[in-house]
Amino acid sequence: MSQEEEQYQEAAEQEYGRQNMAAWLVAAKTLKIQPYTLPPLGPHDVKVRMKAVGICGSDVHHFKNMRCANFVVKKPMVIGHECAGIIEETGGQVKSLTVGDRVALEPGISCGRCNSCRTGRYNLCPDMKFLGSPPTNGSLANLVVHPANLCFKLPDNVSLEEGAMCEPLSVGVHACRRAGVGPDTRVLIIGAGPIGLVTMLAARAFGAPKVVMVDVDESRLSFAQKLGADGTILASTSIEEVKVEVAEIQKEMGDSINVSFDCVGFDKTMSTALSATAAGGKVCLVGLGRSQMNIPLTPAAAKEIDVVGIFRYGNTWPLCMELLRTGKIDVKPLITHRFGFTQEDMENAFETSAQGGTAIKVMFNL
Amino acid sequence: MSQEEEQYQEAAEQEYGRQNMAAWLVAAKTLKIQPYTLPPLGPHDVKVRMKAVGICGSDVHHFKNMRCANFVVKKPMVIGHECAGIIEETGGQVKSLTVGDRVALEPGISCGRCNSCRTGRYNLCPDMKFLGSPPTNGSLANLVVHPANLCFKLPDNVSLEEGAMCEPLSVGVHACRRAGVGPDTRVLIIGAGPIGLVTMLAARAFGAPKVVMVDVDESRLSFAQKLGADGTILASTSIEEVKVEVAEIQKEMGDSINVSFDCVGFDKTMSTALSATAAGGKVCLVGLGRSQMNIPLTPAAAKEIDVVGIFRYGNTWPLCMELLRTGKIDVKPLITHRFGFTQEDMENAFETSAQGGTAIKVMFNL
Amino acid sequence: MSQEEEQYQEAAEQEYGRQNMAAWLVAAKTLKIQPYTLPPLGPHDVKVRMKAVGICGSDVHHFKNMRCANFVVKKPMVIGHECAGIIEETGGQVKSLTVGDRVALEPGISCGRCNSCRTGRYNLCPDMKFLGSPPTNGSLANLVVHPANLCFKLPDNVSLEEGAMCEPLSVGVHACRRAGVGPDTRVLIIGAGPIGLVTMLAARAFGAPKVVMVDVDESRLSFAQKLGADGTILASTSIEEVKVEVAEIQKEMGDSINVSFDCVGFDKTMSTALSATAAGGKVCLVGLGRSQMNIPLTPAAAKEIDVVGIFRYGNTWPLCMELLRTGKIDVKPLITHRFGFTQEDMENAFETSAQGGTAIKVMFNL
Amino acid sequence: MSQEEEQYQEAAEQEYGRQNMAAWLVAAKTLKIQPYTLPPLGPHDVKVRMKAVGICGSDVHHFKNMRCANFVVKKPMVIGHECAGIIEETGGQVKSLTVGDRVALEPGISCGRCNSCRTGRYNLCPDMKFLGSPPTNGSLANLVVHPANLCFKLPDNVSLEEGAMCEPLSVGVHACRRAGVGPDTRVLIIGAGPIGLVTMLAARAFGAPKVVMVDVDESRLSFAQKLGADGTILASTSIEEVKVEVAEIQKEMGDSINVSFDCVGFDKTMSTALSATAAGGKVCLVGLGRSQMNIPLTPAAAKEIDVVGIFRYGNTWPLCMELLRTGKIDVKPLITHRFGFTQEDMENAFETSAQGGTAIKVMFNL
Repeated sequence: MSQEEEQYQEAAEQEYGRQNMAAWLVAAKTLKIQPYTLPPLGPHDVKVRMKAVGICGSDVHHFKNMRCANFVVKKPMVIGHECAGIIEETGGQVKSLTVGDRVALEPGISCGRCNSCRTGRYNLCPDMKFLGSPPTNGSLANLVVHPANLCFKLPDNVSLEEGAMCEPLSVGVHACRRAGVGPDTRVLIIGAGPIGLVTMLAARAFGAPKVVMVDVDESRLSFAQKLGADGTILASTSIEEVKVEVAEIQKEMGDSINVSFDCVGFDKTMSTALSATAAGGKVCLVGLGRSQMNIPLTPAAAKEIDVVGIFRYGNTWPLCMELLRTGKIDVKPLITHRFGFTQEDMENAFETSAQGGTAIKVMFNL
Repeated sequence: MSQEEEQYQEAAEQEYGRQNMAAWLVAAKTLKIQPYTLPPLGPHDVKVRMKAVGICGSDVHHFKNMRCANFVVKKPMVIGHECAGIIEETGGQVKSLTVGDRVALEPGISCGRCNSCRTGRYNLCPDMKFLGSPPTNGSLANLVVHPANLCFKLPDNVSLEEGAMCEPLSVGVHACRRAGVGPDTRVLIIGAGPIGLVTMLAARAFGAPKVVMVDVDESRLSFAQKLGADGTILASTSIEEVKVEVAEIQKEMGDSINVSFDCVGFDKTMSTALSATAAGGKVCLVGLGRSQMNIPLTPAAAKEIDVVGIFRYGNTWPLCMELLRTGKIDVKPLITHRFGFTQEDMENAFETSAQGGTAIKVMFNL
Repeated sequence: MSQEEEQYQEAAEQEYGRQNMAAWLVAAKTLKIQPYTLPPLGPHDVKVRMKAVGICGSDVHHFKNMRCANFVVKKPMVIGHECAGIIEETGGQVKSLTVGDRVALEPGISCGRCNSCRTGRYNLCPDMKFLGSPPTNGSLANLVVHPANLCFKLPDNVSLEEGAMCEPLSVGVHACRRAGVGPDTRVLIIGAGPIGLVTMLAARAFGAPKVVMVDVDESRLSFAQKLGADGTILASTSIEEVKVEVAEIQKEMGDSINVSFDCVGFDKTMSTALSATAAGGKVCLVGLGRSQMNIPLTPAAAKEIDVVGIFRYGNTWPLCMELLRTGKIDVKPLITHRFGFTQEDMENAFETSAQGGTAIKVMFNL
Repeated sequence: MSQEEEQYQEAAEQEYGRQNMAAWLVAAKTLKIQPYTLPPLGPHDVKVRMKAVGICGSDVHHFKNMRCANFVVKKPMVIGHECAGIIEETGGQVKSLTVGDRVALEPGISCGRCNSCRTGRYNLCPDMKFLGSPPTNGSLANLVVHPANLCFKLPDNVSLEEGAMCEPLSVGVHACRRAGVGPDTRVLIIGAGPIGLVTMLAARAFGAPKVVMVDVDESRLSFAQKLGADGTILASTSIEEVKVEVAEIQKEMGDSINVSFDCVGFDKTMSTALSATAAGGKVCLVGLGRSQMNIPLTPAAAKEIDVVGIFRYGNTWPLCMELLRTGKIDVKPLITHRFGFTQEDMENAFETSAQGGTAIKVMFNL
């Protein structure tokens, strides 16, 4: 534990005593730090003292609207799911972990029994319990109880904050897997927000020889360039510009685009992705900007460009650990803001995250 | 050669002598049987006497509008590409075929040198020369010259007409391959026209345990049922009915739909396909009804439903031969109309095909 | 329940009362029908009254040697794992099944937590508990307790005996999946015993256009031919004959062999498989005759022939249900002998199974 | 052209005038530089002035024994196939290249018509004409005529020698593709000779997080370590040591081995690979030390470890260009010896290559 971490822990204990406290979303834009009685520790569970919890776009949706997509917050719920911490207690059957281990948590608890689970696509499990997605309580708390097999031990050279970053990074990793990114895949990424950035990092780690990013915001592109994008293109929001911008993108790529990631999800961005990608390539829809889309799908289909989507991720934590351990991916520059686990900081942190702009990843240190 | 076939040949010789005649598309809705001077026979080519040539939807587009998608007929062109015939002469290097062999022709001649060709996706070759697709002359002629490796010997129990049917069947086979149809794939097919029907036949041969077809025309559904569909659903053309019809379709399937083929290509049909398919499934866009589409793509992507398209086919003839030889597929019921290779029949045949309705496949016997 | 089934049940009740009895393997070649106290019914479990239990080759190994491969019977164990029955009681959380449902049991209970389980390859789970494989008690008993999600409801037109046959059939199905059998795969199967036969049935259902079987026993080949093999070849056991036999096999196939299954597992059979298969094909090693093998692996590897093996199966029951329901596979002819669940029949049944010859599948009716 | 390159060219011209000279293998261990009359330049061909030609293990086999595997040198043949040069003349249809372009040559000319070619596995083409593999003349010559589409333009930052290295590197790339190496594949490589080393470089570029190499020669391991191996293990040649060494290897890996490459091909090395690899992994047989192998195949198959082999490579040059251009792979350290294109140097160079030891790659500069 670093000195800074110790200070936070001390402060937290002073404020709340040893009672387990959590950040409860009680109404739109209203978070209260209140006591949270943990569920009992099962034989395959561990109790984890949370140390780093990041704020995700879906958390912000919950915070602002009491819903995200079809998931509606109907009663007070502990928020948060990007997290890492230290094992405080282990269930009777747990052999893989011991007290004191530093771990990153995979937040989705699938049923293990359905067809999706049995065939390795557990992210599609209809009975998934996902931290901080209603009605399941999340992890912005002093302590949580979680299945041991979803707690992944951090390598010595990986910090707890980096552990919490495995969750957003998993989205990029899963997207790259779904799109089949490899050493001969030239990649276009539309949208240079947090998810576009982790997708870029993942694409590079998967060996992509060229990754170009598109956004409407110059400062985001400049950040992307610093983080490792090979090229950037400033785009407009006008659907009329698709043709011109596609030409510009293709010129920048200098060769075929094999995979395009749309990390925004608007008619404009998807039209760009479908038009820019080479015959036989893939377009991966990651951003969920709009539900209904008006897009030139048929010409893309007639070039055998596959359109694939993603829902969260599966089996990504072990890979994230390796990517961080070997230094192939450095997620630390993505953490732009830090807050403590106090009532005061709580809504500040969410507002900061909601504003976007220079805030890429907002992290709580507990 | 059957007695009927001999009679046609005799009649053709009387009408034209031994000069090679072909059906030239000279203007919209104007086909002329006129002499066609063949290109020279290369060392790897064969000369084939055409015996059966089917009319395809793209032929009808060319006939009516002098274009199909981006392919424009700018000067008189021999039409036709669904064909089979008898080897009349072989080039010096041809070892696999001899005079008298009955063969089905794969109509696309790819360059063999580009990246698409070298990686086995030659249907995406940018230098493809495709029979009867401008500016390449087609095969509705007494004789054509074609690469020997694109002429596939018919098994003894497969007729020349069935040989010609390998071309449309190839579309269904390629679609099933792209969608990964297998013994545990439950299949929905929207559109019971010729392409919907060959897709159904292919899906069954690939082992699909249940195939349900949707159309707006009861007589087409009735035909589909006779041909082997497990169930049929009558749909409307109203986009408002998607939700109700999807419920009806899912009830008929009695279980998950793993793959949906949209053999129409309208907003309505694609919306139905995207909504009806189970999480983790695939939607294959086969019909090219509209270029721009307004569809609920995002909810499907967020269920990891892949959207794949097709462009013609690749490496399908050997499989078609096996499917016909073993009787797993019977294409004969699809041939509903037959015409001779005469000026008189020419436009009749195309008008019959264009009307659709009871005309599934219109075939010329030469 | 058929009349015959009722009679057995009545007899069983007369002999043992309502106490749960099971076939305990207490020493080599010594099976005793003795009381079996069931484990408690968990919330996700069901209690199943066994109606049909088949004898597998591994059961025979256990019976004869108190071991099978590395699995050693160290204390009395209930034997049996190919089974189907009727739901007698359901755990509190079970929604998919109700009392009276007829079900086939998948015998392997994997941990659901390890990497193999999470990636869909649960057959490789190191903590697998497998019915009738030491130290886990099996299913040759009046009643067993089993996870509900491993009990698959039988379609109305599928009998309980056919349900029990899903277990051996699963081996064939898994082998075909591993080898990628499809409609353009020409298949060679070496060994026409029970596993060779189910592999043949599965290969046909997966669409294989030609399946040829090889064995050293003419009566087995004759049975295979009746069951649906396209051709058969009588082989010797002499390793010197590989070259000659391969030539004979290739002549019979009349074209490339894309996949060969070695359902025996000796130097001779594997040498034949490796030599007979076409470049780019696959050899699937199913039979486990020998551990150490002296084989011409390198020439096969240099033709890019992949060698794949199998361990049991995964996610096969739903497919088996469909294959039986649609009549694509008929396993009934494989059941050649039936016995009752009596002490008297017990060892007879195992001896019959052990002798092989005309005994393909020996089934207990309880 | 570098100063050094210019000097060589000048010297060559002084020695031979402008007549095209080539290194003819006329008898075992006898190479003669003699005139070589080029075949005519076809419309899709280019004439290339060779600048760098490496010596491959197969060249050494030809040199020493007038054969390599089943390929026998029956009449004088120009040797060599790892090569790069400068375009001197282009055929009438060539659009992709112009005079002066620096190119690396893919040496295998496949027929483009057979089933292997059409399905993207052209390396299995039965009619392959491969430079320097009898009876096809090779490329150790001033000039060669070659298909333009098999000549890949070098990026500005890639030298001609590096271009010639694309050939051996392609073996590593193809092996990694066949074995499915990616960012979560932990890799073992047995054999640290030239092919083991390029496989290691490729595995790293494909994202493998850990690559450990095994050899019987400490100096090779030391070289491997410098080149980028994460760990090395010194092995013996004794088959008795497999078990002990596997334990040592697994300890060094610290986790599962997902893919093992056997770049040697002896009973010992293959036994080690099969025993060390984790369930569900892959063993790729690259080295062709022995044809007949005595190995524990069955236990590996029963852990669903696939055994895959390779034959040369396919579609690897574009990827090699990217790997060299981006600096993900540096092949320059592999070039340990250089010779001129003189009669005097000729046999020296082959003897140097044949001795192995510190000679990894021996290169001619022309």
